[in-house]
Amino acid sequence: MPDKPSPINPTDNDARNLSVSLIAKARFCALAVLDPNTNHPHVTRIVLGTDPSGKVLSLISDLALHTSALHQNPNCSLLIGEPKTTGDPLIHPRITLQCNARFLPRTHPDYIATRAHYLAQHPKAKLYIDFADFNFVLFTIQSANLNGGFGKAYNLTAQDCSPKV
Amino acid sequence: MPDKPSPINPTDNDARNLSVSLIAKARFCALAVLDPNTNHPHVTRIVLGTDPSGKVLSLISDLALHTSALHQNPNCSLLIGEPKTTGDPLIHPRITLQCNARFLPRTHPDYIATRAHYLAQHPKAKLYIDFADFNFVLFTIQSANLNGGFGKAYNLTAQDCSPKV
Repeated sequence: MPDKPSPINPTDNDARNLSVSLIAKARFCALAVLDPNTNHPHVTRIVLGTDPSGKVLSLISDLALHTSALHQNPNCSLLIGEPKTTGDPLIHPRITLQCNARFLPRTHPDYIATRAHYLAQHPKAKLYIDFADFNFVLFTIQSANLNGGFGKAYNLTAQDCSPKV
Repeated sequence: MPDKPSPINPTDNDARNLSVSLIAKARFCALAVLDPNTNHPHVTRIVLGTDPSGKVLSLISDLALHTSALHQNPNCSLLIGEPKTTGDPLIHPRITLQCNARFLPRTHPDYIATRAHYLAQHPKAKLYIDFADFNFVLFTIQSANLNGGFGKAYNLTAQDCSPKV
């Protein structure tokens, strides 16, 4: 009997380009962390931006559970790519990123350029970007799973979904 | 010195009604599980429906990582409530549900009514609802966190966000 066919397609340039484009266009995403109190998964919405090198980041508050969770365990996952409000939500492409989170101290040499870059992407964040409890967290992609719609699943490396420099 | 004020508001009927409404209107959500291979959080998109009693459920494929993850560890989290595609994504209300997942066998007495109810909500699912690898998973809510926008955070019980019968 033949093996069951794999639901994962071989990665091609269309899959790579779609991934880069989904990430570049995203203004927000779902963030999954481990709740430090229960060790269960916990998913919230965060705003998404990039630093000047194109690395994915967010500006998050110490008051939120996801922030203390990431301080205790930096392993996290982002879901990027939003469906339209009508039609079948599963035909819309989305990508799951497995990431490692790292906070950017205000004293870091990259902080000023990162702040300016983020404000250009999210001008309304100027209302709270300098509050003491808001900090940048950078997401280093470890691997990714692209779902471009039914029968269009791909497993990607970090390089596959990073913009070409 | 006074204590730092809590970012969590006391639960009131507006918060309860908003939660029930967000859940009732949702056609899809983000699902966070523990990846059984890495023990890291993993977040994907799933379609959302309800069973005849109003309990939240989805129809998911055995080919997806979230399905094997839920078979191994039923603790999971759902993010419900989608922002519009323009404007600040954080002003849009959303709710995080902490859930316990339970699969519904096809031989279960509730299966036929659940299938009919789901098809009324998601008619296009008739294309795959009877495929052997698609199964219903029911989410029992343990607790919830409502975020109705800046300064509008609430911690809710399962009862707070369940429709009144």
